[in-house]
Amino acid sequence: MDILITGGAGFLGARLAQQLLARGTVSDASGQQQPIDHIILFDRVAAVGFTDPRIVIKIGDVTDEATIQAVVTPAVQSIFHLAAVVSGEAESDFDLGMRINLDATRYLLEAARKAGHCPRFVFSSSVAVFGGELPQQVLDTNAVTPQGSYGIQKAIGEMLVTDYSRKGFIDGRAVRVPTVSVRPGLPNKAASGFASGIIREPLQGIPAVCPVAPATRMWLCSPRTALFNLMHAHEIDGTRLGASRAINLPGLATSVEEMVAALARVAGDEVVQRIQWQEDPAVSRLIKSWPGDFLTARADALGFRHDASFDDIIRAHIADELTAPAV
Amino acid sequence: MDILITGGAGFLGARLAQQLLARGTVSDASGQQQPIDHIILFDRVAAVGFTDPRIVIKIGDVTDEATIQAVVTPAVQSIFHLAAVVSGEAESDFDLGMRINLDATRYLLEAARKAGHCPRFVFSSSVAVFGGELPQQVLDTNAVTPQGSYGIQKAIGEMLVTDYSRKGFIDGRAVRVPTVSVRPGLPNKAASGFASGIIREPLQGIPAVCPVAPATRMWLCSPRTALFNLMHAHEIDGTRLGASRAINLPGLATSVEEMVAALARVAGDEVVQRIQWQEDPAVSRLIKSWPGDFLTARADALGFRHDASFDDIIRAHIADELTAPAV
Repeated sequence: MDILITGGAGFLGARLAQQLLARGTVSDASGQQQPIDHIILFDRVAAVGFTDPRIVIKIGDVTDEATIQAVVTPAVQSIFHLAAVVSGEAESDFDLGMRINLDATRYLLEAARKAGHCPRFVFSSSVAVFGGELPQQVLDTNAVTPQGSYGIQKAIGEMLVTDYSRKGFIDGRAVRVPTVSVRPGLPNKAASGFASGIIREPLQGIPAVCPVAPATRMWLCSPRTALFNLMHAHEIDGTRLGASRAINLPGLATSVEEMVAALARVAGDEVVQRIQWQEDPAVSRLIKSWPGDFLTARADALGFRHDASFDDIIRAHIADELTAPAV
Repeated sequence: MDILITGGAGFLGARLAQQLLARGTVSDASGQQQPIDHIILFDRVAAVGFTDPRIVIKIGDVTDEATIQAVVTPAVQSIFHLAAVVSGEAESDFDLGMRINLDATRYLLEAARKAGHCPRFVFSSSVAVFGGELPQQVLDTNAVTPQGSYGIQKAIGEMLVTDYSRKGFIDGRAVRVPTVSVRPGLPNKAASGFASGIIREPLQGIPAVCPVAPATRMWLCSPRTALFNLMHAHEIDGTRLGASRAINLPGLATSVEEMVAALARVAGDEVVQRIQWQEDPAVSRLIKSWPGDFLTARADALGFRHDASFDDIIRAHIADELTAPAV
């Protein structure tokens, strides 16, 4: 069987591909493990660093309907839809966000439907679907009330995944991924980008700006946990998900000052001195609208995982990114 | 100022137009009452029975983007978006539902945005956005978990109305209208159509089939209340709506057997004998997925209204529809 990953050249997409190559098999529609013949990494740029012959690089525009139709061949039995415009950019360029986060998702769902064999479809959603007045801990039953266009577009994607699944067009799973920290690589336009930047840059001797107040609460997960949960979302039996295919993923409830205190414990006070505190009202508004804590009873029962501590997350980042070659 | 009503030839659209003609004025963007110059009744068929020169009949396809762009002229300062494929039809014809309930809503929102003056935009949503496991009474904070494509499409429309409002493109209000009973006219393809049919047809000496069990719970409002609340949704100050522009409208919590008992009280046992009980699994599944009771604290505080009793609803139906000429 073939697996399609949109956003396949991105940080999560490329690492997911590595994990899939290492696994060698995934569940097919009937829950049986099947060997992976090809992993199609679809993105606007080429994924780099792969030598495994099972990897197929496809460069294209996810908002082009014909391109998407062509890439979802009958052999594609699983789709990981990770391509997205991030929160900050979806807010500053509304039309781009609608095209990539909404239109492209529809094209992909339609292509999956036309494939005719009900492929597994993992959609990366976000905690940004929540916002506004929220309880101290968000429950599985809380209404989604996004305060940004990114959250709105992700919430719409979730609903389509749920309805396409109910209709039997796909076997979908929409996971609300916490803010991933520490994300390696260069800064991006996500409003939450600082949650990685204030750890990643200081560890490399580079100053970083923190655009939110120290008391700001965050719902986090490490790259390792995000990847485990994306894979787990694919592997679980879809019928266990019930009425909604959207799942609040487990995370670590912390504050920015707790993150910085962990950085001091792991890497020393000197490193922390490289953080400059300079509030950005637009970023701060979006971030403060997102929930900082959840009770994820449903995801816990389904076997999704969370990180133990932010200290461990920083140590894993150092082990994975600063002491080993990048992809 | 001009007002656009999509679905303007439909039952609610045509009556709303009559009310607007009688009022003569509505709130403009700044909350001032302004005289109504034109009411554009847009639909795929011509609205009939109007003689007032302020009425403009426009026949067209709501899923044609250029048509929608053309109909939202700069003079249109208010839009009532009532055009929709009803629940039963959206379920049986998925693509039609997506085109009319989702694509057309997007075209209209985009046209309103391009108009550039932030028009008031009333979107008729539905209790069908709720479904699955629900509390005894649905609260304003409950997650939407639609169990049908109609509910999914309406929930997506609500989110777009909320985001377009937050961005300042429109001043939107999305009202979750209860099942309207007693709806006059001919049966339609709404799964909830029986809630009118089992009253309307027997009162005219015609047999009617009830496709759900007597104990089935319903959240209802009369046509009079639906029209009052649509108008009220237009008139209230949009800034009072806060984070979400979607509003659970007040209704009357009743069961089908209570509706029939009311019919017996108002019209006699003979009339009730014309109801045939014959469960339809597809209709019953959709209807049972919808909530039968709400606590509408937010809508109550905003001044929306509910009906006092189903007996009164039947009496109003007899007065409005069976003893006076139709439109």
